[in-house]
Amino acid sequence: MLDLEIGQEIHKWARDLFPICRSITGPGVRATLDYLGNLLPGLVSHAVPSGSSAFDWTVPDEWSVNDAFIADADGRRIVDFQAHNLHLVGYSEPVDCWLNREELDRHLYSLPDQPDAIPYVTSYYRRQWGFCLSHRQRSALTEGQYHVVIDATLAPGVLNYGELVLPGSDRREILLSSYICHPSMANNELSGPLVTAAVARWLLQQQDRRFTYRIVFIPETIGSLVYLSRNIDHLQDHVIAGFNITCIGDERVYSYLPSRQGDTLADRAARHVLHHIDPQYCKYSWLNRGSDERQYCAPGVDLPVASIMRSKYGEYPEYHTSLDDLELVTPAGLAGGYAAVVAALQVVETNVVPKVTVLGEPQLGPRGLYPTVSMKNSSRTVKTMMDLISYADGTRDLLEIAELLNVPHHELRAIVRNLAAHGLLEEREPRYLTRRNGASAG
Amino acid sequence: MLDLEIGQEIHKWARDLFPICRSITGPGVRATLDYLGNLLPGLVSHAVPSGSSAFDWTVPDEWSVNDAFIADADGRRIVDFQAHNLHLVGYSEPVDCWLNREELDRHLYSLPDQPDAIPYVTSYYRRQWGFCLSHRQRSALTEGQYHVVIDATLAPGVLNYGELVLPGSDRREILLSSYICHPSMANNELSGPLVTAAVARWLLQQQDRRFTYRIVFIPETIGSLVYLSRNIDHLQDHVIAGFNITCIGDERVYSYLPSRQGDTLADRAARHVLHHIDPQYCKYSWLNRGSDERQYCAPGVDLPVASIMRSKYGEYPEYHTSLDDLELVTPAGLAGGYAAVVAALQVVETNVVPKVTVLGEPQLGPRGLYPTVSMKNSSRTVKTMMDLISYADGTRDLLEIAELLNVPHHELRAIVRNLAAHGLLEEREPRYLTRRNGASAG
Amino acid sequence: MLDLEIGQEIHKWARDLFPICRSITGPGVRATLDYLGNLLPGLVSHAVPSGSSAFDWTVPDEWSVNDAFIADADGRRIVDFQAHNLHLVGYSEPVDCWLNREELDRHLYSLPDQPDAIPYVTSYYRRQWGFCLSHRQRSALTEGQYHVVIDATLAPGVLNYGELVLPGSDRREILLSSYICHPSMANNELSGPLVTAAVARWLLQQQDRRFTYRIVFIPETIGSLVYLSRNIDHLQDHVIAGFNITCIGDERVYSYLPSRQGDTLADRAARHVLHHIDPQYCKYSWLNRGSDERQYCAPGVDLPVASIMRSKYGEYPEYHTSLDDLELVTPAGLAGGYAAVVAALQVVETNVVPKVTVLGEPQLGPRGLYPTVSMKNSSRTVKTMMDLISYADGTRDLLEIAELLNVPHHELRAIVRNLAAHGLLEEREPRYLTRRNGASAG
Repeated sequence: MLDLEIGQEIHKWARDLFPICRSITGPGVRATLDYLGNLLPGLVSHAVPSGSSAFDWTVPDEWSVNDAFIADADGRRIVDFQAHNLHLVGYSEPVDCWLNREELDRHLYSLPDQPDAIPYVTSYYRRQWGFCLSHRQRSALTEGQYHVVIDATLAPGVLNYGELVLPGSDRREILLSSYICHPSMANNELSGPLVTAAVARWLLQQQDRRFTYRIVFIPETIGSLVYLSRNIDHLQDHVIAGFNITCIGDERVYSYLPSRQGDTLADRAARHVLHHIDPQYCKYSWLNRGSDERQYCAPGVDLPVASIMRSKYGEYPEYHTSLDDLELVTPAGLAGGYAAVVAALQVVETNVVPKVTVLGEPQLGPRGLYPTVSMKNSSRTVKTMMDLISYADGTRDLLEIAELLNVPHHELRAIVRNLAAHGLLEEREPRYLTRRNGASAG
Repeated sequence: MLDLEIGQEIHKWARDLFPICRSITGPGVRATLDYLGNLLPGLVSHAVPSGSSAFDWTVPDEWSVNDAFIADADGRRIVDFQAHNLHLVGYSEPVDCWLNREELDRHLYSLPDQPDAIPYVTSYYRRQWGFCLSHRQRSALTEGQYHVVIDATLAPGVLNYGELVLPGSDRREILLSSYICHPSMANNELSGPLVTAAVARWLLQQQDRRFTYRIVFIPETIGSLVYLSRNIDHLQDHVIAGFNITCIGDERVYSYLPSRQGDTLADRAARHVLHHIDPQYCKYSWLNRGSDERQYCAPGVDLPVASIMRSKYGEYPEYHTSLDDLELVTPAGLAGGYAAVVAALQVVETNVVPKVTVLGEPQLGPRGLYPTVSMKNSSRTVKTMMDLISYADGTRDLLEIAELLNVPHHELRAIVRNLAAHGLLEEREPRYLTRRNGASAG
Repeated sequence: MLDLEIGQEIHKWARDLFPICRSITGPGVRATLDYLGNLLPGLVSHAVPSGSSAFDWTVPDEWSVNDAFIADADGRRIVDFQAHNLHLVGYSEPVDCWLNREELDRHLYSLPDQPDAIPYVTSYYRRQWGFCLSHRQRSALTEGQYHVVIDATLAPGVLNYGELVLPGSDRREILLSSYICHPSMANNELSGPLVTAAVARWLLQQQDRRFTYRIVFIPETIGSLVYLSRNIDHLQDHVIAGFNITCIGDERVYSYLPSRQGDTLADRAARHVLHHIDPQYCKYSWLNRGSDERQYCAPGVDLPVASIMRSKYGEYPEYHTSLDDLELVTPAGLAGGYAAVVAALQVVETNVVPKVTVLGEPQLGPRGLYPTVSMKNSSRTVKTMMDLISYADGTRDLLEIAELLNVPHHELRAIVRNLAAHGLLEEREPRYLTRRNGASAG
């Protein structure tokens, strides 16, 4: 069923990229984009200077770390950025000082409930510094003097993001977005950009793409704001469906978070596909949002972007800790996420409005469309075919019919092609909504 | 409550017609139409030549059987069409040959799960032949040679159907349709055409019909396709409600199957009436369809036709076997089906949009509309009257108000007449939808 | 939480007014209006002559009672209007006669199921007379002659009602209506007019009322009909929300009965407020109506009037008996009802349509809108703030957003003010519907 080879390949990429210290700016982002560029010919890397405006926000200074540690009086590194980059609070300012245990403790972060986990903490927009460590280690710190060194720079530079545009025969676009700003964590977040990369590679291989695909690898929040502020008119004119791809590598569940509008083509495709993968998939509400849909679907932006996930950010115990690693994210988990996204794209790509060409039911027998030997499955296929025809009145798209029949879209798509080949159906174009041509703002 | 006399009369007609070998064409159909013509003055019998087109279909050759049997080597008839016409596969081609048991068996049909039942099998559009028999009998067949004779003709002829039009003061139409193509079976299907005949006779007796009634007795599928192809413009211009009447003679349940649109006047009337007969009645979905609504409601045809039934085709164990007989179908069962159809027609016939003529609540006391002695029932009537008035704002028809109040339409109808006689209500005409004037296609 | 002082003050008013014999006309109504006039400067008392028309109704003669009793042969008053004014059937005609026990009994009313309660009975529009007494007392009446005296007048006079109009900066109006026609009973009905009086006093104290408030104290049914018939054009032009205030003084539950339209601003505000007071509050249907909403929401009148209650008329055992007294109605019960009405008015008064002024999420940190110390509550406030912003697209009013977020309207209102002060939100005016400008008639 699942293409495990794809999952294994994505998992290998994840192992390659896991050690890199990513943040919303800096060399880790560039190294990651370079790696993705090798996988995806045509990926363009953009650089936006610190201080640039993005709607209500400003691109911050670039952050770069050479080294960071806490050493004891004997010079032994007891907390070391080189050992795990989660040890350093993201965007920590440079420091080199001696502190006693009490003074030091004010800069430490740990999780009493998960005593072996290093938490993930950042402070992008307020200058401070800190270290993260397991609660066990923190509790064992003895009195004494500690040498704290953060050899980092926080200075004007650039914010980087990657963009890959794959033209189709239709200029209307499908947007895929994932983020590349998380350091050494796996589900949130190496799974998102790497599953997206695998999907992009699959799209590159498709000869006859109908729609144009716009795939962006960005830092979360500030990256999507930057991208939107530079492209909003184009996106509102062209995007008919988009997917935010995040937390898509573990094996536990499948999850969906709607666009703000809630019933866009992207939402419908995501729900349809996930329902047929697992009817028990988790449906979240807009109130549970927490990723870049916050920007893509903000009032006045209103792009039709839904999220397809496995275990959603904030909803699994390892979230934002060192426990979110490459044992939690597996080849099978990644392969499942990949398959879900590809299936959703196929629904969008192949959707049509079928319209039967005859009045009354067509006669299937003389056309060989009726099975001559009646078997359980064949009669189900005939029933599905007749049900599809009965709804093919030119007012419903195939996705709506698939929902009415509770049958996967791709099964109906095959039947539509067969019936069209026999002249019994016309395939009309659905009405695609972009923000500009009438998509609801609500 | 039920008019059992009507049921007994319909049951007598059923006993008269039961032995006739009906099919989609042939002398059995004509004999049945002749019988109905005696009951229903004005019934017109139509004949459509073999080879005529009906949308995507063609009227097949006419089928006529003189005799058919399987005899053993001693010439004893062991399976005999004269004993039960279900023994012969419908539309079997002529044959006269000797076969051994194994060769013969390839042409036999039986039901292992119902070993005493003769199944009902047809092959209208693919030339073959076969016999149906009980599984018990089939299992007992010994080795040896068998003489198979089907003395039948399959040749150009006609397809027959009956049509009765009862004009009303309004040229808009109610369509009633049932089918006359089933051989010796009772619920599916002598109950349908015979309950329809009884309803037609009741309509003939009504002096002041409001709407025009069009009642057709047709072979299933090909007959409705033929009828539609010859009358579609007229029907789309005039029909405001229609009922497909089938499987309406047993005593078990009441059933409803919607039109494709699902909320036409016919659907609303059927659901309302059945709810007040039995709130537990079976509501089927369009996906459970299987009778002539498949043609009447097909995309582009879109007539407002719902089905009122008792035990639905395919849903009771005796369906399409010799067990579907005149013990299963009873006078009480037929009388109940008759009453349901008549009630649905009365709802359609008498529906109005009431509009109160005064502002604020009218004063009932001085008009004698308030009971002077307060009893449990009388206060319920006053409550119903006040509730009706409170909804009589000229935007809702009486059927909608009856649903809001959970009160039978005919009870409200009587109150409306009383209030109108006192000048407190106007009776306005509902907005009737035909396919032409705006009925939804979906 | 509750302002018990208000409840105690209202309860004192109730004790003052309880003994007065009110009816739909007469001196009791005037005495009650005088009392209310002392509480509410500006209250105007109107008098409408007997015989005046009010839509389908006519103002009846005025009823005035000096004395009424049943005495035994020894002249001892055994049923005495002076002891409890419920003893006399409302609108009893004058009488002075001797009757034996059997003759007398035909004029007596009691409740076998509540043997200690005196029932409340009236006969406004049919001339008769009667006495109400406990079933225990009635059962104990011995054979003998009884002297029945009703020293009352039923003669042309006036119907009185009170009206207080508090202008706001906006000429559109909020209507508050309660009734003053019930004799010595407490929940139904002194609680309604006295909670309304307390609300009116609170409104008088508000310096910056946005809307104009129209507060009427009327006899039930005939009073609302009279009021409507004299003011309907004005009301249909100006009223955007109204509340019928009745049965609002006991401590048991909170109740809501919708307007006929069911989803007016008044309905939405009432449901919102009651849900946040007690999610288990009783939601009644229009079919359970029984007070002046019957007139305010009648077809063609269609004012947006909902009812806010505690234990609804007809739904509590003491209803319409002498058991509905000032022990059933308590300071806490009245204070709760008062708070609910005030909260509903605040929702209407302060409702806005928020529209975010930036694209993408605004950056809260630099504006000091993000808590610097993260505590459980503060993070909930930030979440609420971000959720509010995410829905502030200019299509939804704050009440709708409050429902989506399941957060009290006043909490969101404070956030909106804060965000508006920071230039992040515009406050637009909701679309207010009056009957004239497009409120649904259905």
